[in-house]
Amino acid sequence: MTIQEPDASRGLELAADPAPARPLDQSFPRSHKIYRSVEHNGFTLRIPERRVHLDGEPGQIDLYDTSGPQGHRPQEGLPRLRQEWIEARKEKADGNFSQMHYARQGQVTEEMAYIAAREGCDPEFVRLEVAEGRAIIPANINHLELEPMIIGRNFKVKINSNIGNSAVSSGIEEEVQKLQWSTRWGADTVMDLSTGEKIHETREWIVRNSSVPIGTVPIYQCLEKVNGKIEDLTIELFLETLREQAEQGVDYFTIHAGVLLRYVPLTAQRMTGIVSRGGSIMAKWCLAHHQENFLYTHFEAICELMKEYDVSFSLGDGLRPGSIHDANDDAQFGELETLGELTKIAWKHDVQVMIEGPGHVPMNKIKENIDRQSEVCHEAPFYTLGPLVTDIAPGYDHITSGIGAAMIGWWGTAMLCYVTPKEHLGLPNAEDVKQGVVTYRIAAHAADLARGNSKAQERDDALSRARFEFRWEDQFNLSLDPETARAYHDETLPADGAKTAHFCSMCGPHFCSMKITEDVRDYAAEHGLESEEALAEGMKEKAAEFSGQGGEIYS
Amino acid sequence: MTIQEPDASRGLELAADPAPARPLDQSFPRSHKIYRSVEHNGFTLRIPERRVHLDGEPGQIDLYDTSGPQGHRPQEGLPRLRQEWIEARKEKADGNFSQMHYARQGQVTEEMAYIAAREGCDPEFVRLEVAEGRAIIPANINHLELEPMIIGRNFKVKINSNIGNSAVSSGIEEEVQKLQWSTRWGADTVMDLSTGEKIHETREWIVRNSSVPIGTVPIYQCLEKVNGKIEDLTIELFLETLREQAEQGVDYFTIHAGVLLRYVPLTAQRMTGIVSRGGSIMAKWCLAHHQENFLYTHFEAICELMKEYDVSFSLGDGLRPGSIHDANDDAQFGELETLGELTKIAWKHDVQVMIEGPGHVPMNKIKENIDRQSEVCHEAPFYTLGPLVTDIAPGYDHITSGIGAAMIGWWGTAMLCYVTPKEHLGLPNAEDVKQGVVTYRIAAHAADLARGNSKAQERDDALSRARFEFRWEDQFNLSLDPETARAYHDETLPADGAKTAHFCSMCGPHFCSMKITEDVRDYAAEHGLESEEALAEGMKEKAAEFSGQGGEIYS
Repeated sequence: MTIQEPDASRGLELAADPAPARPLDQSFPRSHKIYRSVEHNGFTLRIPERRVHLDGEPGQIDLYDTSGPQGHRPQEGLPRLRQEWIEARKEKADGNFSQMHYARQGQVTEEMAYIAAREGCDPEFVRLEVAEGRAIIPANINHLELEPMIIGRNFKVKINSNIGNSAVSSGIEEEVQKLQWSTRWGADTVMDLSTGEKIHETREWIVRNSSVPIGTVPIYQCLEKVNGKIEDLTIELFLETLREQAEQGVDYFTIHAGVLLRYVPLTAQRMTGIVSRGGSIMAKWCLAHHQENFLYTHFEAICELMKEYDVSFSLGDGLRPGSIHDANDDAQFGELETLGELTKIAWKHDVQVMIEGPGHVPMNKIKENIDRQSEVCHEAPFYTLGPLVTDIAPGYDHITSGIGAAMIGWWGTAMLCYVTPKEHLGLPNAEDVKQGVVTYRIAAHAADLARGNSKAQERDDALSRARFEFRWEDQFNLSLDPETARAYHDETLPADGAKTAHFCSMCGPHFCSMKITEDVRDYAAEHGLESEEALAEGMKEKAAEFSGQGGEIYS
Repeated sequence: MTIQEPDASRGLELAADPAPARPLDQSFPRSHKIYRSVEHNGFTLRIPERRVHLDGEPGQIDLYDTSGPQGHRPQEGLPRLRQEWIEARKEKADGNFSQMHYARQGQVTEEMAYIAAREGCDPEFVRLEVAEGRAIIPANINHLELEPMIIGRNFKVKINSNIGNSAVSSGIEEEVQKLQWSTRWGADTVMDLSTGEKIHETREWIVRNSSVPIGTVPIYQCLEKVNGKIEDLTIELFLETLREQAEQGVDYFTIHAGVLLRYVPLTAQRMTGIVSRGGSIMAKWCLAHHQENFLYTHFEAICELMKEYDVSFSLGDGLRPGSIHDANDDAQFGELETLGELTKIAWKHDVQVMIEGPGHVPMNKIKENIDRQSEVCHEAPFYTLGPLVTDIAPGYDHITSGIGAAMIGWWGTAMLCYVTPKEHLGLPNAEDVKQGVVTYRIAAHAADLARGNSKAQERDDALSRARFEFRWEDQFNLSLDPETARAYHDETLPADGAKTAHFCSMCGPHFCSMKITEDVRDYAAEHGLESEEALAEGMKEKAAEFSGQGGEIYS
């Protein structure tokens, strides 16, 4: 065991004492966490999975798991899994700690080996994808609690959950709970978008308690520091803030360096102008100063800082469309080209990059987004917000965006940023976070299936087999949200006996098609066709002979 | 006014007295129903729409509306809108009342003129689409309460809601409420899938209170008549049941005439066998009798009956896949070819036809479904259940299926059959019905947008304009579900003042991108660029000169 246990001395303090999250098996009955051991460079890597125990075939199934170490007191933070890896790495450091830097030197890091085991691929493949910029491993050397993961078009599709308080709502304890809640249901990364008071302290609690990469939008904190006066923002303040956050262990920064002066006028005729907070801040700064965006003009200085900590860029799409009307316009695609240019600069420094994407896009215009992004950003991973495929359903934007997310995920997007039912209306509470994460797990999983991921297909097969065999408990436990599935079933048939019944309240016993199919198969078996193969074989032959006017089979 | 008022003498009876649905504007504030008058053949057709009044531009917007006449006592049924049309038609009848029959003779019926006004197209276009089988108008001559509508790939995408009790749940009153609830939120047709007791009486209540077409699966009632003994089903009993339901006014029948003996063996190696109730019943009958499906062998007799009432076929996909694993297999596509063959037979009788489709299909296999259907079924309208794009989210199957529904709708499906959160688990209650309908309205509307429907785009534009201008009330009232949108907003900012505030709790006042965009535009205006056009023009010129290194605009 090489994992550093939590250090009581770095205990976080809060008047109210946040409790550990409730036990995992309360959300996922008959599941428990397992760790597979993998040896790498003298370290034993422990790869987390969630094992679901089943009554029927295949007996158990091991699922990719993001829930992190369980049962720890938030005050103490999580165990420091990466401490020894990073210490060893610092002994022969050249000032650039980025995973891309190592990958390009041919080194398979502990993070890469860990990810290969998690994704079920070769460590060398992970290294190559990172070296070529097609995937990133957001892993700040100061985020020792991280369970490494990868974002790239040739890996499992990932999802991000946004948390964070605003000036009018929410405290630290609630944000830590949203973090735990997000990763429990399947968030692969979490962005802390806090903008109110205690922004530094909130972030400290979040990073120390997060086993998934944490992203931020540093311009928000900068704006707090200048009391909301956009024109007072400077590159010095920005770099100072990046360093403050990088020291804490933030794994990726959203930076709106592509909002150029020349693109701002292109938004004037839009239906909804600029809807990215960071984008609108930078646009206003540019206009107030009659100068080019300082994030663009000082981009190399930012790269220098990023590589010291291995913080990844998430190049923000400050000019993303905020309505169906504005989708795929010149402002959006102009900025995208600049993001491609910046990608090349970051890669010159071996700094990892992903590219943010829209937004609000009708279905017929979605594919152009990923195709253009792939081309102008040289296959850097795409990270999209939805997209929402219509504007008319506030209150249901997890669904309007889940549709677009599934499609763009299938077509190659590497990570999907969730949208909750509260989008456009207010800050999400815990239930909204769950709805958003589950909806995006559906979208990401559907994308994995459509891309032919065999691990994804295994879970669908296991659940469908359980469904067909009336193993209700297995069906619930294999689902994304066992609590809800069970509760819905029990609303009409709460008795324990109903958990083994060969029907449900939807159709009742006489009309259950699966029950009747069972009868059909039994009938075939009685008539001498005992195995499914024999049945299929025998019947196929008969089918070939069959005249179409009432021949006989099964006889 | 040519509409026959409800006839107290045909009053329906029920121990509990179902109340009229609550007023429409409780669900849709600042909306009221309007009727546009259109003259046709001496009749005044009154076209229903829902007008939403707005504080800002464009002042009001008229929406396609399915909610039907309001405020009527369910005991008395709805006004008999079509009574005089049908009476006039019966005076020169030739025994075939189907809309296709009239269309092929070059006649534009009242239903076609009504639909043309509703869809915003030419009546002759409606006639042509019906004549060529690309669209159907489900409109039994005994369903006089119907507000005519059309299902076809060149019209607005429609959605269907399923209601109906099962042996273990639900009564008549509840089913009437689900009907009203479904159409209020936007269901274009409703299927009554009742299987328990009082199946005839439940249907009578539903048809008399429905302004949308009602579909059924008649084999369910047949099975009740033979006490669940599938082998006792006969074509005589089936035709008798069709007539009973046709007399009541059912507008379309799902008939599983494509489940042929030779396809049944193809399901033996499936993960989930046969999952259609009707399909499994017919498969079992075939095996029990060693005979071909009597719905197939007596298909012309069924056509003869259908045309007497103008009941449309919904040719059932009894062999649709019930799991991702089984999608697009030989059983499914074999049956589809038979449905194409049956379509030609129905058309020979001028009987209208739509084709049912799956089911469970991964995203990468969806398009093949609509492309094949279009080809082998000669462009007859496609009517799909979802499809669900993954099996692993019971409790969320409105979402897993809404994704597939939106995609296949975009690609040409004419009607989407909703799926509720209770799918696979139990019977939907009123809230589940609403969730299903709203989700499917999202899918259908997204499909309309992607197909370039300008009426659909108008609503998105109106809502996005309201959003950008901080007209919160307009934003709520233009949404698919104003109640929910308002409630979510008010959770964090309940004060009335917040309804005109230029921010919400998501970002707070300092970080509202739309607020900042307003500032940007104000700034431009102050500096001499007063209109948006001038702004855009002036800035575009500047942009062209701009060096990329800090030029000045707005000066």
